[in-house]
Order: sequence, then structure tokens, then C-alpha cells
Amino acid sequence: MTVVASRITGLETFDVRFPTSFSRDGSDAMNPDPDYSVAYVIVRTDAGDGLEGHGFAFTIGRGTEVQVAAIEALAPLLVGLEVEAVLGDMGGFWRHMVNDSQLRWLGPEKGVMHMATAAVVNAVWDLKAKRAGQPLWRLLADMTPAALVALVDFRYIGDAITPAEAEALLASRRAGRERREEILLAEGYPAYTTSPGWLGYDDRKLERLVRDAVAAGFESVKLKVGASIEDDVRRCGIARAALGPSGRLMIDANQRWDVDEAIANVRRLARFEPWWIEEPTSPDDVLGHAAIARAVGDIAVATGEHVHNRVMFKQFMQAGAMGICQPDACRLGGVNEVVAVLLLAAKFGVPVCPHAGGVGLCEMVRHLAAFDFVAVSGSRDGRVIEYVDHLHEHFVDPCIVTGGRYRAPTAPGYSTQIRRESLLRHAFPHGEAWSRRAVA
Amino acid sequence: MTVVASRITGLETFDVRFPTSFSRDGSDAMNPDPDYSVAYVIVRTDAGDGLEGHGFAFTIGRGTEVQVAAIEALAPLLVGLEVEAVLGDMGGFWRHMVNDSQLRWLGPEKGVMHMATAAVVNAVWDLKAKRAGQPLWRLLADMTPAALVALVDFRYIGDAITPAEAEALLASRRAGRERREEILLAEGYPAYTTSPGWLGYDDRKLERLVRDAVAAGFESVKLKVGASIEDDVRRCGIARAALGPSGRLMIDANQRWDVDEAIANVRRLARFEPWWIEEPTSPDDVLGHAAIARAVGDIAVATGEHVHNRVMFKQFMQAGAMGICQPDACRLGGVNEVVAVLLLAAKFGVPVCPHAGGVGLCEMVRHLAAFDFVAVSGSRDGRVIEYVDHLHEHFVDPCIVTGGRYRAPTAPGYSTQIRRESLLRHAFPHGEAWSRRAVA
Repeated sequence: MTVVASRITGLETFDVRFPTSFSRDGSDAMNPDPDYSVAYVIVRTDAGDGLEGHGFAFTIGRGTEVQVAAIEALAPLLVGLEVEAVLGDMGGFWRHMVNDSQLRWLGPEKGVMHMATAAVVNAVWDLKAKRAGQPLWRLLADMTPAALVALVDFRYIGDAITPAEAEALLASRRAGRERREEILLAEGYPAYTTSPGWLGYDDRKLERLVRDAVAAGFESVKLKVGASIEDDVRRCGIARAALGPSGRLMIDANQRWDVDEAIANVRRLARFEPWWIEEPTSPDDVLGHAAIARAVGDIAVATGEHVHNRVMFKQFMQAGAMGICQPDACRLGGVNEVVAVLLLAAKFGVPVCPHAGGVGLCEMVRHLAAFDFVAVSGSRDGRVIEYVDHLHEHFVDPCIVTGGRYRAPTAPGYSTQIRRESLLRHAFPHGEAWSRRAVA
Repeated sequence: MTVVASRITGLETFDVRFPTSFSRDGSDAMNPDPDYSVAYVIVRTDAGDGLEGHGFAFTIGRGTEVQVAAIEALAPLLVGLEVEAVLGDMGGFWRHMVNDSQLRWLGPEKGVMHMATAAVVNAVWDLKAKRAGQPLWRLLADMTPAALVALVDFRYIGDAITPAEAEALLASRRAGRERREEILLAEGYPAYTTSPGWLGYDDRKLERLVRDAVAAGFESVKLKVGASIEDDVRRCGIARAALGPSGRLMIDANQRWDVDEAIANVRRLARFEPWWIEEPTSPDDVLGHAAIARAVGDIAVATGEHVHNRVMFKQFMQAGAMGICQPDACRLGGVNEVVAVLLLAAKFGVPVCPHAGGVGLCEMVRHLAAFDFVAVSGSRDGRVIEYVDHLHEHFVDPCIVTGGRYRAPTAPGYSTQIRRESLLRHAFPHGEAWSRRAVA
């Protein structure tokens, strides 16, 4: 009998949009009316084990069809590969996905093409974790330092961290790993909530939701700012009063300010004692963030959800421009590049507080934060995961947040799988959620 | 009789690919086998004047269909607008095109979506110049300083240059404008050639082509490096010998090196006295380029063809990381953002030597360099436009280079129009150029 290797047989893609703009959930100074969406992909094999890999790029409505086209453009790189060879060398697989010379022109490693890489790479990680019967975070945490280092593409970041440094750092965190895993499983990981603070909510709703969040166990609440500084001052006052003096208040300007404007506005809001100011200006502006960080003293400058690759994260850290590191699971090129950023953050001593919300980001980043705690930074101090309480019902393995803490996921995979009926119902533009709305 | 305003009625798009990989034209250390391509767009109106706007994103093969989808995603922002209102406020039009909140998630202002913006914005500039009966460069050069400043989105660059500074700078260049225009029309603009130096060419072809270039009047020749340093040393020696001691040799590593590697390799190649080292490392790495620039002394660090927006150019200049500024007409968000970069370069005293080659870039950037000379920098000293001698025959108004100099274009428009028969013949995958190849 000959052993026949299983192969990746195909991708199935979906353009899935949730009509969140009707309730103004997710509204901020840059995004008044997002329709939270995903360009979704299922990776199938002929292994006969019934396992699929699920992944997606999170988007906010228009243009999701472009994102789907980008994922489909990657199919020729993937279909036909031997499954075991791919899963056995995920670092090599990542480099294969980003090194198509013709596709690199469309980035390189940024924007739509890089988010497509993330969708496909994360789908393959989901498949690998399902095959291993482990949640992704434990699959990663159980890997040796050498195996983790082999996941990372050090091209362009070797001047900040070398493979040898990364391996030594990971080896130094081996002690206490079992204890941290026990703590994680027993206590969970601290969450903060952005749900009360959307810019489209009125003052009374804001106040009520902050009080509800405190009652539900949240110690940290984030508020959107940046449309009008007078409104920001008033709303920060309401939130701080409702939160009490010991609660942590974060503010998020969603890129609305120029550098000088950011400095002036953050100074005006300083009396409400924000822990961090998030996305004060363009996510491309490393030097601008460094100038803001120098000017606003104890208030940390947070960014990352729009920071497009490890080369940018490297510079934010080298320049002292990022006090809080907020990687996005779907904008970086999947798990491999997130590991690179976690290593950079550990080396530079920057706390990682992943961006979440949207569609499925909460489901994913709890894996990343858990892995970071157990195996990379070794700490939860000064670290929280964003939490937004919508759209979880569409996921097969939804996140669970109780008492202001994320429970560690236990189901095999990367928790990226959306229920089939949700995919079909919200398919754009012909799914029932959209066709009925058009009629109404 | 009522005046009926004309409107933009629609976009027509094309996926057009030239099978350049068969001759290895365009081969470099990152791109062994590009098929030079365009995602092409025609903007039509109901003005009844027979005028269309033509624009495109230059691509290198696979993924051009994604770029076409991105251009089509912009159509709803454009179709139905009043033509005169758009052409009368090109600055407002640019902001309108980049400020769709849902589409910004896919960038913002980078990668596939930003290149789509470039295609559409440049098509509208082509239309505006055709209506004015002027080549684009003269249309721009004839605008007042205030009108030019109004084209630019100063968001995120106000810490480096303010509108008032920009206007004063442009006003200071009014003197001598007519004289510079005469010089330009009489003498042209210096070109350099990359045609001899593709990495896929053997040593004898390299030597012969460098000699041919010198004989044709070129004083500056660029060589691709970065695959193997031993090969680079040998090839630079051949090129320097063929060029003679007074010719200018430039080298281009197409992002192949890490920072430390770049420094070591450039030092090894320094004895061939290169004028500049182009793209030594990741185009996102501002701080890395700054470190290289500090380490390699008199050799200028050149980059820009993959630098995705004005925020990145700003930082390269603030950090002293860009000795030569090489904007790409199709990667920046069209003419408006190129004007922003020309203003930044003039303020920081960085010579602009636009990236060209590809498809149609030579046709376009001669307008940008001419405008820069006449109205912005006021100088051609230490400035050259890239020239590659292929694919010009497909253009209605092809560039003309004689005696190593670009002639100033005189036909109305932005020279972006590809001949209809070329569009159809090279349409991918069903045009004759591809269907016949598949059969052969």
C-alpha cells in the first residue's frame, strides 16, 4: 500500500456583510457608519478527515468584493500543495505566500493584498490547530523556542531582533509556563470594553453603558474622540464620572488629528487621566507618534490596528513611538507575523493589547494574548484585550467574557469559523439579510 | 435655454498585460519575470465634446484583476458627479476620493486601493488637461501658487510643511518661470537609462548596452544589483568600464537587503563610485534608510517607487533618509499627491528623479519633472528622469527621448492614453496576445 499525501484542493470565498450601520454600532470619528464585514475563506483538503481551515479579512463594508478578489488571487499559490508539508513548515509557507514577485508590486506586504495573505494564512493555522486537537494558543505555546523562531520572517527586522535573540528570549520564558497556563485557565485574561463609547451614542446612552460596564466587572473602558474637542471634553467627563477615579479610561481618536492638533487635544483631555491615547494621527506616521509621545508625558500612545506589517511595528518601537502595541489579527499577515510583533514587543518591553471588535477579532486575539502571556511576554500586567459585545453569535466558538475577563478558548482551532447559516444569510448582496432590507 | 451641466457617466476598465517575461525585460533581484501590465480606466462624460480621461495603475502581471476590481469599487464615488464642479475643485475631488470611510479600512491610502485612486484621479487630470488644450505640465505650471496649494491635502503633513509655507515657496519660484520653460522646450530634460542593466541580461549584453547608451547620449546608467554581491561587483566593474570615469552609475537593489547587509554591500560597491543606491531595503523602513544613509557617506540613498503616500515621503525627508526622491505617478494617489511630494522635496532640498519604466510611467513622469523644473524646484541640477525603452509604441502620445533627454510633451492631456487596438490585443486573458501564446 502506498501512502498518498493529502493536498489542498481549493478555496471557497464569501463576501459577508452585517448591516451594523443601522444601529451605529462601531461609529467613530473616522467611520460614521461601518457595515462590519468579512472577506471569508474556507481552505479544503482531500485528507478525508472532514477538517477545514477558516479565515477572513475583517472589512467595514464597501470594497469587501475587492478583498475577496485578492484572496482568490492567492489561490494558485495554495491549491495543490501537500497539506503535511505546509503544516510541517509554517514559516516556509508564510514566505511562499508573501514572495510572489508579481503580487508584491501590489503591496508589498500592505493593504488589500496583505490582508488577503492574513485570511489564507490564518485559515491554514486554523486547520493545523484543528488537526492537532488544540486551541491555537496552546499549539503555539507548546512549540519549542526554535520552532517558534522558525515561523518568523526576520527579513527587514534583523536590525532590531535576531533569530538568536528571539530564541534566547523565548527560552528565558520557559520557566513558569505551566503556572501561567493554570492562572490563565482559572482566571482568564483582563478585557476592556469599547461598547459604551461609540461616537454615535448620545450622552445618556454613554453614561448608562459605562455604568453597566463597571457593574459587569470591567475596570477599563475606551471612548471614541476626535470629531469635536468640545464634545470630547464633555464626554470624557461623563465617562470618568461614571467610571469612578480608579477605573481606567482610554481614548481613541481614530487618526483624526494632525501631530500638533493631537498634542494640543490630548493635553486638554489629560485631566480625565486617560491611560492611553489611541491612533492620534496617521497610522503611517512613526515620527509623528514619537513626537506626540514625547509631548504628552505619562499618557501612553497606542496604535497598531492599521499598522500594516512588522517593518512598521519595528520602527514604532525603535523610535519610542508606541507605548501600547495593538496588532490586528487580520491586517498583519496572519499568525506568523503576529509572532514577529510579539517578539519585537517583548524585546522592547512594550505591552501588547490586541485590537479587537469588528467581526471575529475578539474570537481570534484571545488566542494571541494567551500565547503572549504563557510563552512570550510572560505577563498580564498592564495588558488588556479589547472587547466589543456584538456579532459573536455568528461564530461556532464564540468568545466568552465574564466578570470583565476573557475565558481562555479550549476548542481546537483558531475560533475563526462562522456558522454556515450566518455566512449564507449575510452574503452580499443576495443573502436574506440584505435582500429583505432592500425591500423594506 | 437652460444650461445643462455635464456629468461623469461611467468608467470603462481593462485588464491589460504585456508578456514581457518572455524576454526578461524588467528583470531585477526581486522581480525575475514581470509581465508589465496596467489596470486601465477610461472616464466618460455626457459633455458631447468627445473627450475622455484615461488613467491606469501600473502592475506587473498576476493580481491585475484585483487592481481592476479596486478601480471599479471607486465608480460609485465618481459616476454622476458634475464634470465642471470636479474639474474646478480638483483638491476637493481628491479628498472626496480618499475619504470614503468604509474603503479607508482597506488602506488607508496605501496598496491596491490607493493605486486605484491614482488611476481614477489621473484619468480626471487627463480629461481636465485635454479640455484645457494643454499638456498637463503646462496646465499645472500656469496655475497660481494659491491654486496649486489648494490641490494638496495637508492632512498629516502639516508638521513638515504648511499651506502658507508651500504658497510662499511657489511664489518665490515665479521669477524665471518663462525662461525655464524656454530652456525646457529647447533642451528637454535629462534622462537616465535602466535598459542595459536588467539582472536577467548576461555580461556581454550588459556591456554592449551600456556602450550603446553612451553612444546614444546618456550620461547616466542604472544597474540592477542585489541577487549576489559577487555578481554585483563584477557587473558594476563592467558597467563602470563601459561608461567611463565621467559617466554616472546608479545601482538599484530592489529591496533585497536588510539594513546591515545593505551597508556592507554598498561599501563593497563604493569603489565603482555609484551616484545613488536605490531601494537598498524595505520601502517602509524610514529609520533603516536613515541608518544606511548615515553609513554610506557620499552615496545618495534613493527610494520612492514603493513609498505609498505623502506621510511616508514626509518622514523619509524629516529623517534624512532620502537623498533622491523617486515618486511613482501611479502609486501615490495621482497628481494631487505628487504635488504634495514635490513641495515637500523642495522644502527639504531633496532632488526629485521620478521612477519610470513599466508601462506608461515614462509618458507620465516627464510631465511631473517638467512641472517641477518650471514651477516648484526651479532646477534641473542633479535631477534625471528614468527611461526604459519599451512599450512606448502602445501610447497615443509616446515619450520622445533624443540625445539622452526627454522632449517636453506638447499634446493636450497627461499622455496616459493607450491605443485602443493595444488595449484589446493585450486584454488578459482573452486578447490575441495571450490567446495565441497559449496555443503556441
